Amino acid sequence: MPVNTPGKHALAIAFLIAGSAFVHAWAQPAPASGGPVDPALIQDLVFANRILVDQSVLDAFGHVSIRHPKDPNRFLMSRSLAPALVTPEDIMEFDLDANAVDQRGRTLFLERFIHGEVYKLRPDVMAVVHSHSPGVIPFGVTKVPMQAVYHNAAFLGAGVPVFDIRAVAGTTNMLISNRDLGHALAQTLGEKPVALMRGHGDIVVAASLPMAVFRAVYTEVNARLQQQAIALGGPVTYLSPEEAAKADLINEQVLARPWELWKRRVSGKRD
Amino acid sequence: MPVNTPGKHALAIAFLIAGSAFVHAWAQPAPASGGPVDPALIQDLVFANRILVDQSVLDAFGHVSIRHPKDPNRFLMSRSLAPALVTPEDIMEFDLDANAVDQRGRTLFLERFIHGEVYKLRPDVMAVVHSHSPGVIPFGVTKVPMQAVYHNAAFLGAGVPVFDIRAVAGTTNMLISNRDLGHALAQTLGEKPVALMRGHGDIVVAASLPMAVFRAVYTEVNARLQQQAIALGGPVTYLSPEEAAKADLINEQVLARPWELWKRRVSGKRD
Amino acid sequence: MPVNTPGKHALAIAFLIAGSAFVHAWAQPAPASGGPVDPALIQDLVFANRILVDQSVLDAFGHVSIRHPKDPNRFLMSRSLAPALVTPEDIMEFDLDANAVDQRGRTLFLERFIHGEVYKLRPDVMAVVHSHSPGVIPFGVTKVPMQAVYHNAAFLGAGVPVFDIRAVAGTTNMLISNRDLGHALAQTLGEKPVALMRGHGDIVVAASLPMAVFRAVYTEVNARLQQQAIALGGPVTYLSPEEAAKADLINEQVLARPWELWKRRVSGKRD
Amino acid sequence: MPVNTPGKHALAIAFLIAGSAFVHAWAQPAPASGGPVDPALIQDLVFANRILVDQSVLDAFGHVSIRHPKDPNRFLMSRSLAPALVTPEDIMEFDLDANAVDQRGRTLFLERFIHGEVYKLRPDVMAVVHSHSPGVIPFGVTKVPMQAVYHNAAFLGAGVPVFDIRAVAGTTNMLISNRDLGHALAQTLGEKPVALMRGHGDIVVAASLPMAVFRAVYTEVNARLQQQAIALGGPVTYLSPEEAAKADLINEQVLARPWELWKRRVSGKRD
Repeated sequence: MPVNTPGKHALAIAFLIAGSAFVHAWAQPAPASGGPVDPALIQDLVFANRILVDQSVLDAFGHVSIRHPKDPNRFLMSRSLAPALVTPEDIMEFDLDANAVDQRGRTLFLERFIHGEVYKLRPDVMAVVHSHSPGVIPFGVTKVPMQAVYHNAAFLGAGVPVFDIRAVAGTTNMLISNRDLGHALAQTLGEKPVALMRGHGDIVVAASLPMAVFRAVYTEVNARLQQQAIALGGPVTYLSPEEAAKADLINEQVLARPWELWKRRVSGKRD
Repeated sequence: MPVNTPGKHALAIAFLIAGSAFVHAWAQPAPASGGPVDPALIQDLVFANRILVDQSVLDAFGHVSIRHPKDPNRFLMSRSLAPALVTPEDIMEFDLDANAVDQRGRTLFLERFIHGEVYKLRPDVMAVVHSHSPGVIPFGVTKVPMQAVYHNAAFLGAGVPVFDIRAVAGTTNMLISNRDLGHALAQTLGEKPVALMRGHGDIVVAASLPMAVFRAVYTEVNARLQQQAIALGGPVTYLSPEEAAKADLINEQVLARPWELWKRRVSGKRD
Repeated sequence: MPVNTPGKHALAIAFLIAGSAFVHAWAQPAPASGGPVDPALIQDLVFANRILVDQSVLDAFGHVSIRHPKDPNRFLMSRSLAPALVTPEDIMEFDLDANAVDQRGRTLFLERFIHGEVYKLRPDVMAVVHSHSPGVIPFGVTKVPMQAVYHNAAFLGAGVPVFDIRAVAGTTNMLISNRDLGHALAQTLGEKPVALMRGHGDIVVAASLPMAVFRAVYTEVNARLQQQAIALGGPVTYLSPEEAAKADLINEQVLARPWELWKRRVSGKRD
Repeated sequence: MPVNTPGKHALAIAFLIAGSAFVHAWAQPAPASGGPVDPALIQDLVFANRILVDQSVLDAFGHVSIRHPKDPNRFLMSRSLAPALVTPEDIMEFDLDANAVDQRGRTLFLERFIHGEVYKLRPDVMAVVHSHSPGVIPFGVTKVPMQAVYHNAAFLGAGVPVFDIRAVAGTTNMLISNRDLGHALAQTLGEKPVALMRGHGDIVVAASLPMAVFRAVYTEVNARLQQQAIALGGPVTYLSPEEAAKADLINEQVLARPWELWKRRVSGKRD
């Protein structure tokens, strides 16, 4: 596990991590499970992994989680694995400190803390996507704010904050590799659905798994459209915040249409 | 069904919609059918849906309709469904107010009013495509007019109007969710083959289904070419209106070539 | 067949075309065949059609021809058909005036005159490609000359002329729809391997079919690379004419490598 | 074999090459083999060829080599062949002067000297990729230095040198077609993982084959992201050298994830 060293606190944090690893291995009991989960929900989480690859949001990296449907203090996510390869057997359960309920030697995503810390601060959130969405990354490294070009990306209308890990932790390996960094990212996200991570990627959240997938896909699409609109030159008319708020209600209403399509595509049942 | 609230007339319109829904459910008879339609034409409409996905004009959203071949006051379109999944069984019949002839509980596209209102104002039009064609959207949100870069897009040569829903209805959810908005969009279209919708997408019309599909595809292609030409810098020489008028006659003449190819591609008979 | 009307000579030309059509239909014998052609060469011409689609040079439109291997006054090309669908049975023989040797009611490409007129002026040319190569079109409508960004496109190093049909024939339908326009285009091409056609596409020629295909593919690739290099800003270092001349000798030497690969891809024998 | 003629030394070099060819053919014994190689490693080299095609780094051209695992003075690479077609039977052994151990009439890559000369100067390097990576080429012909936009391309953080063959050898055919040019390129590379070649492509090196493939893929991805970030306008915040150094340690740690995914994709075992 990489040791993050944010400025002058590096040694202290390294000590804490080493210490907690010791405790975990020898003394701290694994967290209790939130209980069995409907296999259909697990299957949807597998679909979400593959849809996000099929829709060019994820490549070999990135992850998607859901909050445990019966226990708000647990979440479900794959072991460390390329998302295109995830199967139901790879889904694990974690507490909100990102400790595995039943690790059995499996490798964990280095950045699982993103998910736990967002679930802590955002009780409304039931699903989290972390990606290196390629169209989005340029907006994280420039001063150009992402804005909603069209109605399908209306959820961006309230603004898209950018998290610069350097501002909170100095020189790092860029990863959200501990709870403190996860907490700082979740604070930057605030009440928004999307936050960019400078030099890294973004996170997308929603009150349901299909909506988190929808938002991740249309964040990527909107980034490409905004890039093109800016390249045309001259002023760009974005959705007003009021238009965006109204239009986003429609996205909720029509969500089943892309979700069913995208599941068909990755199920090999595309006809 | 979302209730659109265009400025100060919001309440009145909401009342009207609520009222008409009441009447429809309890009293107003469903409109009569224009009569049976050749299954080959229905199959072509299914092909059109899939071609427009295959050619990157439609994603999970958007729709394509044809006017009823025997009754100019009826049109045919899928129930609310991702266009890649449309089959002949999903095609429904509507009157020009966008009432279903035989709804049987099926969900309708929220923006079916686009089609009815265009068919009312344009007796020459036999097919309508509404899409979020990705290359086209940037032109709807900037001041750069779409123009015909090459002969295959010559139908753009007479100009491409832009419909800004905000100008006619104030703050909305961006959708053409009632007849009044459909009428306003159809008026903006006027006698042209294509109109852009700011922050939303575009509509493409033609005197035949294959030509509407052709125009939708080459509107998308032309948008990408125009974007690239502008990015090269310096003046761009577009087709003159006179060249465009002559060149568009050729598109009519060669239309069967792409149409047969595209049908083969989506039929799985590509060899 | 569309009648092109180039400025003040329109009537005269229209008369000539009408006249020759009359003569052809009732009196002029079909041209004699140059003799049977090796089926392997016909198959290569079919491959060339499909490779150019697979490599994104051709879409539903465009055509590729070869000079008859035994008779320099004949050439071989498909009947009017989307290139992805061409089979050996679709290949026809033409004289250099673009008259079919054995038409048998088949529809001919409107722009077959491109091929005949190039073969007349360029005895070194054994194959001609006409396409709407998408990356290339922007260079035909701006003042930015195409130049060789890298060695695989070294054949562009001697310059890429642009043919503007308006300059030679006034307002037209943009097509090379008769021999005079074909002759004017061939004159603009001169001794070069590539010429752009404003608002239309380009032509690519070579001393062999594989080399014509190679050049068409790398003209498209180079256009995209040049577009990107220009977008980065600042001066671009192109191949010098001397570097280009030397590098193009290598393209000749390594040509079999892409040709064999591309044939495998379109043969379904890709492994 | 093309004879490179750098300025006034052309004749002398031509003589030397002709001479060495004579000696090689009649007198100089072929170099001895470094010994048998684990077939799994050969298979990985075949995978590397196909992965680099699948990930759009290689087209019909380019090559990838590994240093012989038992003899640092030997390397392994395909005969001259499109990388998508390489099989274990095509892998050959070379000494560091790029002489084949067992040529048996097979054609060799013209630029095999790249590999031998890099292995001579860089004992830490175990794998070399040479490509015409399309996103990267624009950076080789402009003054814009490639920089690390995000953590997956952190290996670019120490700078990306550009090799201009014209500066060291005057007018050439752009190829690294002899040992002197290979040596000059290896010197430009220095201790870095990536060097661009003006008007040609790039080379990527690493201490393992999977890492060389990873770096080649993310050099291409980073080039596209950097191009987009620059196009947005305004200053771009790249990874600092210190961030890059830390982040690159993580790439080493997570390398198995993309490598296993990419092997699955080209094995036809993608599920």
